[in-house]
Amino acid sequence: MPEAGTGSLVGPVEVVGTGLVGTSVALACARAGIEVLLSDHNDEHVRTASGLGAGRVRRADDRPQLVVVAVPPDVLGPVITAALTASEAVVTDVGSIKARPLAQVLEHPEAAAHAARYVGSHPMAGSEHSGPLAASPTLFEGRPWAITPHRDADVAAVELVEDLVRLVGAVPAWLTPEEHDRAVARISHVPHLVSSLVAGRLAGAPDNHLSLSGQGVRDVTRVAAGDPRLYGQIVAGNAPAVGELLRELRRDLDAMIEAIAGDERAALEQLLETGVAGTRAIPGKHGAPATAMVSVFVTVPDHPGELARLLADAVASEVNVEDIRIDHDTSRPTGLVELVVAEQSGERLLVSLESRGWVTHR
Amino acid sequence: MPEAGTGSLVGPVEVVGTGLVGTSVALACARAGIEVLLSDHNDEHVRTASGLGAGRVRRADDRPQLVVVAVPPDVLGPVITAALTASEAVVTDVGSIKARPLAQVLEHPEAAAHAARYVGSHPMAGSEHSGPLAASPTLFEGRPWAITPHRDADVAAVELVEDLVRLVGAVPAWLTPEEHDRAVARISHVPHLVSSLVAGRLAGAPDNHLSLSGQGVRDVTRVAAGDPRLYGQIVAGNAPAVGELLRELRRDLDAMIEAIAGDERAALEQLLETGVAGTRAIPGKHGAPATAMVSVFVTVPDHPGELARLLADAVASEVNVEDIRIDHDTSRPTGLVELVVAEQSGERLLVSLESRGWVTHR
Repeated sequence: MPEAGTGSLVGPVEVVGTGLVGTSVALACARAGIEVLLSDHNDEHVRTASGLGAGRVRRADDRPQLVVVAVPPDVLGPVITAALTASEAVVTDVGSIKARPLAQVLEHPEAAAHAARYVGSHPMAGSEHSGPLAASPTLFEGRPWAITPHRDADVAAVELVEDLVRLVGAVPAWLTPEEHDRAVARISHVPHLVSSLVAGRLAGAPDNHLSLSGQGVRDVTRVAAGDPRLYGQIVAGNAPAVGELLRELRRDLDAMIEAIAGDERAALEQLLETGVAGTRAIPGKHGAPATAMVSVFVTVPDHPGELARLLADAVASEVNVEDIRIDHDTSRPTGLVELVVAEQSGERLLVSLESRGWVTHR
Repeated sequence: MPEAGTGSLVGPVEVVGTGLVGTSVALACARAGIEVLLSDHNDEHVRTASGLGAGRVRRADDRPQLVVVAVPPDVLGPVITAALTASEAVVTDVGSIKARPLAQVLEHPEAAAHAARYVGSHPMAGSEHSGPLAASPTLFEGRPWAITPHRDADVAAVELVEDLVRLVGAVPAWLTPEEHDRAVARISHVPHLVSSLVAGRLAGAPDNHLSLSGQGVRDVTRVAAGDPRLYGQIVAGNAPAVGELLRELRRDLDAMIEAIAGDERAALEQLLETGVAGTRAIPGKHGAPATAMVSVFVTVPDHPGELARLLADAVASEVNVEDIRIDHDTSRPTGLVELVVAEQSGERLLVSLESRGWVTHR
């Protein structure tokens, strides 16, 4: 276990990249009384963030407990790698893609030796605005924040990142890096790209077409206003998952075009019905009526990597783990981990974990 | 000029179809002190609407000045036809498609003889809810309301429909029936269909994917919750325009899939840039900073069909006519019509109308 990873976040926290998300993390930590160190290749952003009370400029002799990398997708891998090799800190990042940066860390000879200290994460919060001036310490309150430990991540490092997520008021969601990327392709990247295609049909349209615009088209196209360079990086970094879903969507589009051309009303209505079902599948916002929960207890050998392996197996069963509680009784050679899931998912999780060799209890 | 068409709305107004839109029209008219007659094949809807103060049940001997047909797209043609042959009233409808119902009227031997009394229209207002209980007299305030006169519509009939639009607080937008259908394909039907395709990718998705849903995917898919049977009718009734745009969108989707698969970042960013331009093309809501306006005056022979011909020629120039004022001095053999358009569109409208043989003045 690395010396910095105490499993309890006390700081200092270093934030690398003082844009909207990085500065918001810094403000939330500072508000909780944790010392925050700021760095960015853009000096003006650091000064602005510091002026907002987000922390102070990092010095060479600072020893952060946790480094939060908040830089654009194209440079996530190199910046995480640099953070791992430059300090003893636990390192997380808040990037929109998780598998490729992890692969870049594992491919780097020196960083790979420290990969146990790296645990990726991704807050599902943002804004059409950008930069430190748009930041807010409450940006993450009640929002999902994906934590995506790889198989060799240290338990203490995972716990430290979870501490950060809870500190800023977000709701942890546990996924493998690969599953995370498939999830955001579906619920974020593809909706953005398709919104952009619809908006593209408006560019250069006659004024008298556009003057009939109502709330519907405004809603469908709102996200398409996002920065093309940033979204280009995000999508390029998640090309396999995004491409697969776009090809699925093209098959449906082909079927829709055919149904309309052939006046096949039942086929058209079926496609629209599937869409209605999709809108109903989106869970209510945090604060909506709570689902009944059930706990699954798992016996875990008390050595590094086992908790991460359990989490990986839990998420591989496609059950959404709502909460995790770890029994820290160090007098025993095994630990007990409690996984909290929706009632209807409990049985599935039990069966799935047992099939993977875990000892479970209700 | 038919006896009912005085060019000034005094009532009674008959509303055929007491769903959300029909009942909202009725409530707005009743609030303005106009007698409203209600009819619907669903007795319960009529009683509900009447109970809300929207009007009284129509009797056989009533003689409405204006009939507003507010029925589903599949039955627009037959109900408009029946209204034209059953009374001397001016007839409009509030349906989402305009060319096909008009064609059905013109194909009907008896109704075709009365087609001068029919002027289609379409309020760009609605709700995810339906039925009379969701109705509101303020539903149309500040919203665009397309008026789509055909070439042989009576001037007085057009004016009466414009009176209705202004009475309920909506903003008239003048288009030909064909241009209207192309416009709503672009700003309503295709956004709805594509929203439905995105939502379709969520149906049956793993819980742990859906739990990461943020505001973006909720916005993109909101309209997809609409009634599949109603939207099936709308889309089927506008198949050529919708099909053309969906095929354009498929070409862009193919280009996007190729750009992502080939990691062609510039091509991907270009598609996203076009989307950004599209979001900027949507005009501000009514109440946004006003555009400077200019008036174009046109000399119009004072006999039936001429105003409609002028409107058809004006909209054929793809200029959005914001307002129309008609000089009613009956002592002259010609009238003067003032067309109000955005400043930058004035010259285009002048040139276009002159090329079609109209005498214009600044």
